[in-house]
Amino acid sequence: MYAVNVRDHFMIAHSFRGAVFGPAQRLHGATYVVDLELRRPELDADGIVVDIGLATETLRAVLAELNFRNLDEDPAFGGRNTTTEFMARVIFDRIAARIAGGALGPHAGGLTQMRVALHESHVAWAAYEGALPAVAA
Amino acid sequence: MYAVNVRDHFMIAHSFRGAVFGPAQRLHGATYVVDLELRRPELDADGIVVDIGLATETLRAVLAELNFRNLDEDPAFGGRNTTTEFMARVIFDRIAARIAGGALGPHAGGLTQMRVALHESHVAWAAYEGALPAVAA
Amino acid sequence: MYAVNVRDHFMIAHSFRGAVFGPAQRLHGATYVVDLELRRPELDADGIVVDIGLATETLRAVLAELNFRNLDEDPAFGGRNTTTEFMARVIFDRIAARIAGGALGPHAGGLTQMRVALHESHVAWAAYEGALPAVAA
Amino acid sequence: MYAVNVRDHFMIAHSFRGAVFGPAQRLHGATYVVDLELRRPELDADGIVVDIGLATETLRAVLAELNFRNLDEDPAFGGRNTTTEFMARVIFDRIAARIAGGALGPHAGGLTQMRVALHESHVAWAAYEGALPAVAA
Amino acid sequence: MYAVNVRDHFMIAHSFRGAVFGPAQRLHGATYVVDLELRRPELDADGIVVDIGLATETLRAVLAELNFRNLDEDPAFGGRNTTTEFMARVIFDRIAARIAGGALGPHAGGLTQMRVALHESHVAWAAYEGALPAVAA
Amino acid sequence: MYAVNVRDHFMIAHSFRGAVFGPAQRLHGATYVVDLELRRPELDADGIVVDIGLATETLRAVLAELNFRNLDEDPAFGGRNTTTEFMARVIFDRIAARIAGGALGPHAGGLTQMRVALHESHVAWAAYEGALPAVAA
Repeated sequence: MYAVNVRDHFMIAHSFRGAVFGPAQRLHGATYVVDLELRRPELDADGIVVDIGLATETLRAVLAELNFRNLDEDPAFGGRNTTTEFMARVIFDRIAARIAGGALGPHAGGLTQMRVALHESHVAWAAYEGALPAVAA
Repeated sequence: MYAVNVRDHFMIAHSFRGAVFGPAQRLHGATYVVDLELRRPELDADGIVVDIGLATETLRAVLAELNFRNLDEDPAFGGRNTTTEFMARVIFDRIAARIAGGALGPHAGGLTQMRVALHESHVAWAAYEGALPAVAA
Repeated sequence: MYAVNVRDHFMIAHSFRGAVFGPAQRLHGATYVVDLELRRPELDADGIVVDIGLATETLRAVLAELNFRNLDEDPAFGGRNTTTEFMARVIFDRIAARIAGGALGPHAGGLTQMRVALHESHVAWAAYEGALPAVAA
Repeated sequence: MYAVNVRDHFMIAHSFRGAVFGPAQRLHGATYVVDLELRRPELDADGIVVDIGLATETLRAVLAELNFRNLDEDPAFGGRNTTTEFMARVIFDRIAARIAGGALGPHAGGLTQMRVALHESHVAWAAYEGALPAVAA
Repeated sequence: MYAVNVRDHFMIAHSFRGAVFGPAQRLHGATYVVDLELRRPELDADGIVVDIGLATETLRAVLAELNFRNLDEDPAFGGRNTTTEFMARVIFDRIAARIAGGALGPHAGGLTQMRVALHESHVAWAAYEGALPAVAA
Repeated sequence: MYAVNVRDHFMIAHSFRGAVFGPAQRLHGATYVVDLELRRPELDADGIVVDIGLATETLRAVLAELNFRNLDEDPAFGGRNTTTEFMARVIFDRIAARIAGGALGPHAGGLTQMRVALHESHVAWAAYEGALPAVAA
């Protein structure tokens, strides 16, 4: 299995609900350094997993929807806790939708798995990974 | 699959037996920077993989049993070589036992996999990963 | 010149005022990974720059005053922009005051310089450094 | 499953063919920081995954075949694009051949999986991983 | 003294002349991860060292002149060895010229020092630092 | 001012004497990842700060005197606490002596400053820096 990873970041405010979160129930924020990893069993005709330029642009576009915002006020999250692991899934789903829409180009149909990891500090990170649905070439 | 990772470290002395270890047969030591990664297929009702505070405390408690010690004198290892990969398994087993004992709280029953990685320098690390036994909620 | 550095982090929400900040004028947030570096020309009688335990505790105590908060609502900042470089200075001054108050123990009078660096992402950091006033032993 | 990882690097020139590569069609170059990860389900009699000295030497020997060269002129690649993911596979195959030839010593038959990752910058990496064929002890 | 640092990277081919370079006399290449650090004794009226957006753009523009190129063919270097430390100085001088030309905005006159560091691998880097000439506001 | 840095590591056992060290008074150990930084105001005729091959060999030779040892039994330290900052100075002095002896080649006389930093974990490091005595070319 081959993999390619690109990295970017975004910065948000949010708060959590539930005693398990302790002082993180207060309004605070985070920098998330995001790793987007795309996998496929064989390379395409150009010898690549994915057009790294398109992968970088797609990641940036998805993060731009979140960057410099207060996630508590984003109706997309409907009052759910926007934890690091939850946001990894949100970004996974949004990138998967863009891939299905053709954002990664004509050869992206060969991609079979994706992983999104969010580093929130030098001592903690969270991730979501899963299969990518087959895309008609 | 979701994952959350927390990081801590410990510092020990030890020596190895066997020609394969060369000069590491002498008494020396290491700093191990430890990554504890916990995985589950679905988030709990709070939107988390695990109570990150409890995960951090549990890792710290297990490392405190080892920190600032000469592993050659620890009867728990019975004269076995306390290599980086061996210690990854030791820490895996001790954390698994604490999880089974309830250390990670009432929702930890949903955890299905764990990985413990020990970074011994900027050029070498070792890890052990495996399934977590199902825990009654 | 000798130096010792300890690292910790804190997570806050804030917003900025001024066109130069672009979208960062919106309420957002950041994780700051903080490096506290203390310097002195000669080691003390124990062979150290500083009691690293006390340095770690002092850094933690100062960051705890800021952690998991919205800096826009902290009267200490009086409506000023809490930029990364501004916060580096705030933390410098608060640690300097604690050192003057004896927080780093009886030998800390030998410390002559301090640097506080805040890493806000994998591509940006800011710092403030300066002399420490002489402290009566 | 146990894993051990060693790290080294090499520096090459190359160019790519195909519009997807944009300005990287020009002759340029890269530093690749390489992680070689070896896995096995059980430790050997010495308590290790692999002789880390032999693993380091084997990685160095394979990278020495590539280091400080223009990959465009290496007949081994026959005009194919020497992308990061392609080179990860090249290095995987060359190390697998050396393992089959006994380079990692008499206990390396227990190794079952390998992963080779090439970090090309602070924001991008690629990898290839797969099973290792069973080796007669 | 305050400092702000931004990071970017570029990828080049080159070769060196002189026996001291050993195998690096062959055509090869490198990824350089570049840290641009700007310093000033006092913050400006917005509470910043520099407009971080303009600093990032300026660094990117200077690196774009070099990125994806064979430095051996760049007449700007007149056959000199484009070592890591030499390139740190080249980038320092080009950014200093852009600052003098107003690239960092109206408050950049307060900048007094600059440092450019090029990381060429996980085990080596080089840097050039020096004073910035006073700029009329 | 120009600088070049090379990195290596060593692994030792030791213990400390004095209540300030708490549990580190027990026999334990550490991995030290070492950065050796050499500085000079002008490049030499080859366009370099130092022959990076010789710098790497010299660092390795000095660390080999310490690697895989129990520092408590090394008569060179005469019962002194081998703290991270103390060891940074030991390595500084040993490298300075080798430079004076010609280990870095005929152009090393232009080196004016040196810094040795020892990283003991992901959250702590210490360093010693100072002037290099002028060396006859």
